[in-house]
Amino acid sequence: MTDGKRADGRLPLQLRDIAFEVGFQPQPHGSVLISWGETRVLCSATVENRVPYFMQGKGSGWITAEYDMLPGSGNRRVRRDRGSLIKGRTQEIQRLVGRSLRQCVNLERLGEKQITIDCDVLVADGGTRVASVTGGAVALRLALLRLIADGALTQDPWRCWVAGVSLGISSGVVLLDLCYEEDSSAGLDMNLVAASDGRIIEFQATAEGEPASLDTLNDMARLALKAVTEEVIPLQEEVVEG
Amino acid sequence: MTDGKRADGRLPLQLRDIAFEVGFQPQPHGSVLISWGETRVLCSATVENRVPYFMQGKGSGWITAEYDMLPGSGNRRVRRDRGSLIKGRTQEIQRLVGRSLRQCVNLERLGEKQITIDCDVLVADGGTRVASVTGGAVALRLALLRLIADGALTQDPWRCWVAGVSLGISSGVVLLDLCYEEDSSAGLDMNLVAASDGRIIEFQATAEGEPASLDTLNDMARLALKAVTEEVIPLQEEVVEG
Amino acid sequence: MTDGKRADGRLPLQLRDIAFEVGFQPQPHGSVLISWGETRVLCSATVENRVPYFMQGKGSGWITAEYDMLPGSGNRRVRRDRGSLIKGRTQEIQRLVGRSLRQCVNLERLGEKQITIDCDVLVADGGTRVASVTGGAVALRLALLRLIADGALTQDPWRCWVAGVSLGISSGVVLLDLCYEEDSSAGLDMNLVAASDGRIIEFQATAEGEPASLDTLNDMARLALKAVTEEVIPLQEEVVEG
Amino acid sequence: MTDGKRADGRLPLQLRDIAFEVGFQPQPHGSVLISWGETRVLCSATVENRVPYFMQGKGSGWITAEYDMLPGSGNRRVRRDRGSLIKGRTQEIQRLVGRSLRQCVNLERLGEKQITIDCDVLVADGGTRVASVTGGAVALRLALLRLIADGALTQDPWRCWVAGVSLGISSGVVLLDLCYEEDSSAGLDMNLVAASDGRIIEFQATAEGEPASLDTLNDMARLALKAVTEEVIPLQEEVVEG
Amino acid sequence: MTDGKRADGRLPLQLRDIAFEVGFQPQPHGSVLISWGETRVLCSATVENRVPYFMQGKGSGWITAEYDMLPGSGNRRVRRDRGSLIKGRTQEIQRLVGRSLRQCVNLERLGEKQITIDCDVLVADGGTRVASVTGGAVALRLALLRLIADGALTQDPWRCWVAGVSLGISSGVVLLDLCYEEDSSAGLDMNLVAASDGRIIEFQATAEGEPASLDTLNDMARLALKAVTEEVIPLQEEVVEG
Amino acid sequence: MTDGKRADGRLPLQLRDIAFEVGFQPQPHGSVLISWGETRVLCSATVENRVPYFMQGKGSGWITAEYDMLPGSGNRRVRRDRGSLIKGRTQEIQRLVGRSLRQCVNLERLGEKQITIDCDVLVADGGTRVASVTGGAVALRLALLRLIADGALTQDPWRCWVAGVSLGISSGVVLLDLCYEEDSSAGLDMNLVAASDGRIIEFQATAEGEPASLDTLNDMARLALKAVTEEVIPLQEEVVEG
Repeated sequence: MTDGKRADGRLPLQLRDIAFEVGFQPQPHGSVLISWGETRVLCSATVENRVPYFMQGKGSGWITAEYDMLPGSGNRRVRRDRGSLIKGRTQEIQRLVGRSLRQCVNLERLGEKQITIDCDVLVADGGTRVASVTGGAVALRLALLRLIADGALTQDPWRCWVAGVSLGISSGVVLLDLCYEEDSSAGLDMNLVAASDGRIIEFQATAEGEPASLDTLNDMARLALKAVTEEVIPLQEEVVEG
Repeated sequence: MTDGKRADGRLPLQLRDIAFEVGFQPQPHGSVLISWGETRVLCSATVENRVPYFMQGKGSGWITAEYDMLPGSGNRRVRRDRGSLIKGRTQEIQRLVGRSLRQCVNLERLGEKQITIDCDVLVADGGTRVASVTGGAVALRLALLRLIADGALTQDPWRCWVAGVSLGISSGVVLLDLCYEEDSSAGLDMNLVAASDGRIIEFQATAEGEPASLDTLNDMARLALKAVTEEVIPLQEEVVEG
Repeated sequence: MTDGKRADGRLPLQLRDIAFEVGFQPQPHGSVLISWGETRVLCSATVENRVPYFMQGKGSGWITAEYDMLPGSGNRRVRRDRGSLIKGRTQEIQRLVGRSLRQCVNLERLGEKQITIDCDVLVADGGTRVASVTGGAVALRLALLRLIADGALTQDPWRCWVAGVSLGISSGVVLLDLCYEEDSSAGLDMNLVAASDGRIIEFQATAEGEPASLDTLNDMARLALKAVTEEVIPLQEEVVEG
Repeated sequence: MTDGKRADGRLPLQLRDIAFEVGFQPQPHGSVLISWGETRVLCSATVENRVPYFMQGKGSGWITAEYDMLPGSGNRRVRRDRGSLIKGRTQEIQRLVGRSLRQCVNLERLGEKQITIDCDVLVADGGTRVASVTGGAVALRLALLRLIADGALTQDPWRCWVAGVSLGISSGVVLLDLCYEEDSSAGLDMNLVAASDGRIIEFQATAEGEPASLDTLNDMARLALKAVTEEVIPLQEEVVEG
Repeated sequence: MTDGKRADGRLPLQLRDIAFEVGFQPQPHGSVLISWGETRVLCSATVENRVPYFMQGKGSGWITAEYDMLPGSGNRRVRRDRGSLIKGRTQEIQRLVGRSLRQCVNLERLGEKQITIDCDVLVADGGTRVASVTGGAVALRLALLRLIADGALTQDPWRCWVAGVSLGISSGVVLLDLCYEEDSSAGLDMNLVAASDGRIIEFQATAEGEPASLDTLNDMARLALKAVTEEVIPLQEEVVEG
Repeated sequence: MTDGKRADGRLPLQLRDIAFEVGFQPQPHGSVLISWGETRVLCSATVENRVPYFMQGKGSGWITAEYDMLPGSGNRRVRRDRGSLIKGRTQEIQRLVGRSLRQCVNLERLGEKQITIDCDVLVADGGTRVASVTGGAVALRLALLRLIADGALTQDPWRCWVAGVSLGISSGVVLLDLCYEEDSSAGLDMNLVAASDGRIIEFQATAEGEPASLDTLNDMARLALKAVTEEVIPLQEEVVEG
């Protein structure tokens, strides 16, 4: 990287290619396979006419997410979370995805429905949590459009698109959209999720290696925000609205 | 079906289209996405240089399988087996897949290695257990070829191809390769797994609805065996050996 | 076995002695201790006035089974399935028993009742799954007769007796009703469950060792069917009907 | 009970009949089916040449117990402890049985062996915990005699017989050896486990209903101790030593 | 101890200092931190307007208890009971605490309410189960007084104070109120729980080491009873009633 | 809050009182009870001479954290995570605490030791995760000082103090150090963990309600950083170094 080039030839602030295969699963209300570089996450949105107990009787809906990795998705086999504890990382990610996607929708307009967003990582090459948010938002939008088309919703509860990117510092250089190899060696990890109007929904910076100053974090956040709003969200809009 | 045609236009003894996408997951030793009609199962084979405790010190290898359905794979959301019991159907299927695939390989020649075949159903439209056996055998073959290419195996432990088909009786008619809708209404279900030389590895017939005579079962088994050896196994050979 | 005799002196197609001790447990609606050679399985049938959620509101009943082995039943201590996964083999067997016994009864005539058949293996010496089906059917019949006697059922929902036998191929010889030692060394295992009219309810053939041709399987199935209908089912009838 | 007679005709301080069927399970080192009135508990003793981690390297053995009730043992079906918490009552009883039976044996003389006593209640009609202690001691003695006969033990580690009885106060009357119906209505429950020399190993008195004075407890304990040493332990000795 | 003094200078029948810090947790209906020597147990009582299923529709309330040890409470880190079995000792203790505290209250007068007593050991230095009973009774009394003050109870369901002490025999000497070090070396352990009128609610004597005669147990019980009624219960009364 | 005052009379950017009670638990290597306003978290640090499997053979140590809430800590009873899944929020917090505290220490200098930081919330009134980080760092420092005093460490692996604060936006006003009531109604939640030199270790901003602009987040982060470095960390230093 002495010449500023990354392992896969990208520039430091260049995103990998992002593509969406809509309707990969025919049964759920919304389904999309998002490919983000080598990373591939199958996202589905299933609608049920009930809400969890803590939302009952409020006339409002709920959106929740589950995340998992297939055993063959990574560079060593990932054990299934069967009959035992859910991995802490899994819980952390699915809570992040759920919180992020609840920002897409006016839950009161949704009415007493629960939408579950399932994000299953088929191939993991870094950035699975932001790919899950980004693909999950598309699955969610597709499910809502189907509810509207079916007459199950009379007004559109959609508020805004939500997407995310990851970035990090590796050997002193800020890199946007880390692949797995870069992520493993980064001293500082950041994930930023934002809405289409540029407001921040989730911002997580974690120093397993080297902490950074607040100024550095702020500069990085600005780069991330620009990538989300100018590059990622337009792709979401395009795939759904054509 | 009054005219002998099925919902999707097939004849009673006609298989759906079967296709293989090799290398869908880049990391495992072997990986294939099998499409069998609408059903899609992602199969991977991961090799580890250890065997389970009951095989230790025997100089022999082991092959095991895990099976699961993604939440969005079916016509209602499938709950994940987290922190709770594994569903009985899941266990039954993954044991069938493991036993079947152990017939493909001379375990002594494999040496003290364990190969885990993961079969994850992305889309379920009937026949997921035989699609798992059939795709799993391809993933297993690919993994062995890679071990041979890498020099980790000096002789090929492969014995034979193994594949399966399902069939059933619906309204008195024998139907080969049931889709989900046909499977739900069938009174008798059969799964047959065979080797390329025509010998039977697994034969399971179950009457949830109407039991059948032994002669009927025998006739059906003959049809299934012919489909496995003349139609399915040649496709496996073709995808691996070109 | 060079002289055609087996370890315990039986001929290849000879069943072990089968005996029933009715009412071993005084509390359940039906209870029987079946002794099948050395194997002993305690079977009980408990009736509840509710059905599982997937059967509610259909006006129909349900029959389910649970199977387990006592720690001291085998030649090494069997660990209890406590606070952990149920063993796959256990699940496979209890599903087989449940499916088989549902064929004994017209579930609509049963009405909204659930009958649970518990099969607990006190001593295991081969053939525990077919002993469970055979003893479970007796416990089920006893429970129904008690419901009729108590006036809780006004018409008899009984359809037919159901029983099973196991068989296998060991050193090229077909052996009926394998004891544990024979079962461990058999290359091919078969379990057949049939109704009193000779129709097949479950037929499972599994080759852990050597696969067999379809003709061989067919010949074996005929022997098994004859043993079930001419030897085992008459014993069930005798114990209940006197 | 106005005439001092109990439901089954016994006098207040009369024990039910106790019988032992030795060798009910052929495989474990020791096995006995104890019948205590209607209550029947299958007890087995399995020897392993290892000790739990907290006993390793001390040159001493260990004795532990597990207790469970079969689903059909009681007057309503007992759910299995699968994939969930072990019931608190079960844990309480198996700890009591283990502690009691460790008093039978000089653990240092046993050497680095673990003996597991499994007590499975086939029929429950009160007093299952003391029947488990009493039958478990017989299974344990049988296992030790077999180890001695096999030459696996060169000196006998046996210290003394241990047995128990239950008693309670019902409608102001002290009753020895309560059956289920009496136990349910008793205001105070007592279980006493003693050694053949009359020393107390476990003494538990519990008032779910009406507490009692210390003098009353003391009187009851004397009755219980007499029953254990003069009636129950002689039966244990007789069944083993003939 | 040759001079009759114990490690901490106490006489054999001398209790450690007992103190109560009321209201340690502001939210539960009742809360107290009991310090008993070095042992510290945080007890809370939470009231819910529902009863467990086995008490429903009886117009009566229920009291239950949970017990746990914090990881840093003992001389080696205590593992949390997460996603796994609850330790048997934990279950045994929380059942003892629940049974004991149900004696404090007339459950019919309580009405259809459940009170959960949580006893969490912050520091363990012996006697945590009797400290839990003693502190739990204070938390329970505080909760009831608050329900009365709030008008949620119109008559006081309180019956009597309940408290406990432990004692043991170490090197032939009876010691009251064992600290951890003494408890570890004691051959016989006793816990006695009694009501203010001197009646016995729970009496448990366990010989892990040396059994004792009934006369010895009786003498010990008298000492324990005197300590409970003359020393411990007056402290409970004082802290609540001032 | 129209006059800029908060429920408890604090100014918007005013911290609550923070106090440390060192040595609350006598047994662990380090122990402290941190009181942060009404919130009280008991933190302990336990040292073991082993590392988790993924760190073995690297000559380096490890620091991990566990977090839990006592049942009576909050305004409704918190259920224990027994025999079931660990709550997602719990996992998220304990991972945050562990990552934060690993920054305090040079793990290579620590050598092959694992230090477990247990953070148990006795009273929850907002800010429990930053109180856990802040108190956990003190417990960790105490444990290291004890290892040095005992000669178990020959050089001090300490790198820097680490602490955190929470803040949020409620009704458009930025509030530092939210109590529970404020936290429940805040539209945006932020937690910042920093080292004594002002570098950021964890920065998490989450909009359950109203997202905020990047400029707002940046301003808030500056306030939080100032509070951590100028107010919280000096208190940590004072309590340990006196």
